[in-house]
Amino acid sequence: MKKAQVTAQHVAQQAGVSPTTVSFVLNDVPGSTISEETKERVRQVARDLGYIPHVGARALARGRSNNIGLVLIQPHYQVFTDPYIPNIISGISEVTQLNGFRILVENINSSQRLSSIEDMLKGGEVAGVIAINMYEVETGITQLVKQGYPIVSLDVSTSSVISTVFIDHAHGARQVVQHLINLGHRRIACIPYGPLKGNPHVAWRLETYRQTLEEAGIPFDERLVRFGDFDPETGYRAMQSLLTETDRPTAVFGMNDMMAIGAMTAIHELGLEVPDDIAVVGYDDIRTARFAYPALTTMRAPERELGRRSANMVVDLIQGNSPNQTPVVLYSQLVIRNSCGATRALPDD
Amino acid sequence: MKKAQVTAQHVAQQAGVSPTTVSFVLNDVPGSTISEETKERVRQVARDLGYIPHVGARALARGRSNNIGLVLIQPHYQVFTDPYIPNIISGISEVTQLNGFRILVENINSSQRLSSIEDMLKGGEVAGVIAINMYEVETGITQLVKQGYPIVSLDVSTSSVISTVFIDHAHGARQVVQHLINLGHRRIACIPYGPLKGNPHVAWRLETYRQTLEEAGIPFDERLVRFGDFDPETGYRAMQSLLTETDRPTAVFGMNDMMAIGAMTAIHELGLEVPDDIAVVGYDDIRTARFAYPALTTMRAPERELGRRSANMVVDLIQGNSPNQTPVVLYSQLVIRNSCGATRALPDD
Repeated sequence: MKKAQVTAQHVAQQAGVSPTTVSFVLNDVPGSTISEETKERVRQVARDLGYIPHVGARALARGRSNNIGLVLIQPHYQVFTDPYIPNIISGISEVTQLNGFRILVENINSSQRLSSIEDMLKGGEVAGVIAINMYEVETGITQLVKQGYPIVSLDVSTSSVISTVFIDHAHGARQVVQHLINLGHRRIACIPYGPLKGNPHVAWRLETYRQTLEEAGIPFDERLVRFGDFDPETGYRAMQSLLTETDRPTAVFGMNDMMAIGAMTAIHELGLEVPDDIAVVGYDDIRTARFAYPALTTMRAPERELGRRSANMVVDLIQGNSPNQTPVVLYSQLVIRNSCGATRALPDD
Repeated sequence: MKKAQVTAQHVAQQAGVSPTTVSFVLNDVPGSTISEETKERVRQVARDLGYIPHVGARALARGRSNNIGLVLIQPHYQVFTDPYIPNIISGISEVTQLNGFRILVENINSSQRLSSIEDMLKGGEVAGVIAINMYEVETGITQLVKQGYPIVSLDVSTSSVISTVFIDHAHGARQVVQHLINLGHRRIACIPYGPLKGNPHVAWRLETYRQTLEEAGIPFDERLVRFGDFDPETGYRAMQSLLTETDRPTAVFGMNDMMAIGAMTAIHELGLEVPDDIAVVGYDDIRTARFAYPALTTMRAPERELGRRSANMVVDLIQGNSPNQTPVVLYSQLVIRNSCGATRALPDD
């Protein structure tokens, strides 16, 4: 169905040079000895004829792709349920647009995993990779990094060779729990998202929750932990379940805002008040958090910044700069609103 | 920094065939006359040596890319503010994963526009394109479609050659306004997202709002229209502004849920009640809509379905099937919760 396309052969003929010269000029192959005059003539003819080099030929000639792979090991129903990944993508695309790269989104199951990343990089499909949730394939990624492939991980890593930028969510969890302790709470429930397996981030936050309580002399009570699964519906159900405890919590830490918002609905439906009966704190500061009822106290996680940093790092690696030896760590910030009860203590202005 | 890689030459040598045969076998080039036995031997040697064909060579040999371009003309702060685009991507990726395609996200400014899509397709970067918000370049897209390139548009189109699937948001707007009229409202405000320019979807919904009112004998009052800009904050401000009218609205239609949720906060902050003083209806049914306070009445827009349909259509086109002659139209569904006041009228079970 396609019309005959203009080829490099046509351009070569009209410009009076060889097809190889056309390829060298239009693909900016470094190190060629073609005169500026010839280059200009070739470019002019290509423009006049409307010639666009085929990406296959272009990638072969220049040796690298214009794509950056964003590789996620996560079921896709999760990827876009919560604004976390979209926010990261938004930050990445700010940087890639400026640098002339496109984002190739690769959402892989654990069964494909490493081979998929390996294929993308070795096959020249992408110039570099930003990887999320790669815990289980860290050894393989370390191998690829050692072979010189540009890879940036957004997760805490035990490998010293992988370039890494991540948000210190343990620091964030500690802020939340300490804030609730400071407000006088001792029965502080927690709604993490599951499963713990294969997700050190969650295990790490949950462990920090336990530690922060114990440092304040409050024994950890596993009956106060109920797993959700990102979605507000799951926070709602986790809270309903917590409310059946005879010795009910007086405060709840939801590990994302969506679940915390669901939890507040469960509290209201029982005729209880937030924060008077139960204080609620979320995590992320999604755009509707300030407009929840009551306005949600939460941790503002620098997700776009995480995206921007990771993209800058991978572009750096692609351009041949040395990888970062130390991980870049970003921190979340406590945003106090009404759902935690702290504002009740403040005098009115 | 990269180690020497295994090339097709190595595989050819070890398998005792020509490099061209290696390329034909590993790239599944249709129509070759190579025996099954030879094919198996080449594949075995390639596996043993860990050979991965370069994507450039692969695309040249097979003639098409494994990527589907998702092209958005929209400032990227908007793209991921609202879950609309992430939901569409989620639906697309369900289908592309099954069919062995990856999604290449291309977020373009109006200045690059068409040439960017043209380059991707003609350069073989993508096998097909799903386009969003392409109103201003429709003529150019029509040309590309006539040249045989697989393109699916997610917008209402005046062109009969472009394969199209879209949600009939005029139908949705009519449902909302009619529902509020049926509940007895006559001063019904509207918070569209702007700007109107270059976005027929918004103009179309706003016109439907006007028509539906006038058909019910309610004159259109432009003082009841206040533009927002996707974000809840903008719905909050639009509502604050509406509340300064001496003849205040008794109902508000927010053109996305995020703005409707912001609007409810503005109403509460003035000491007014939703829905008793002002009824609110949103649009989209985002995941937190049911957990807003009060639970938000809204239109459930089939965004994932839109993504799935568009992906199936573009895969069909890539596989050489004839394009759809008639657009596929999807409809949103009214989800009645508490913010509109309709449930007050219902007897308790």
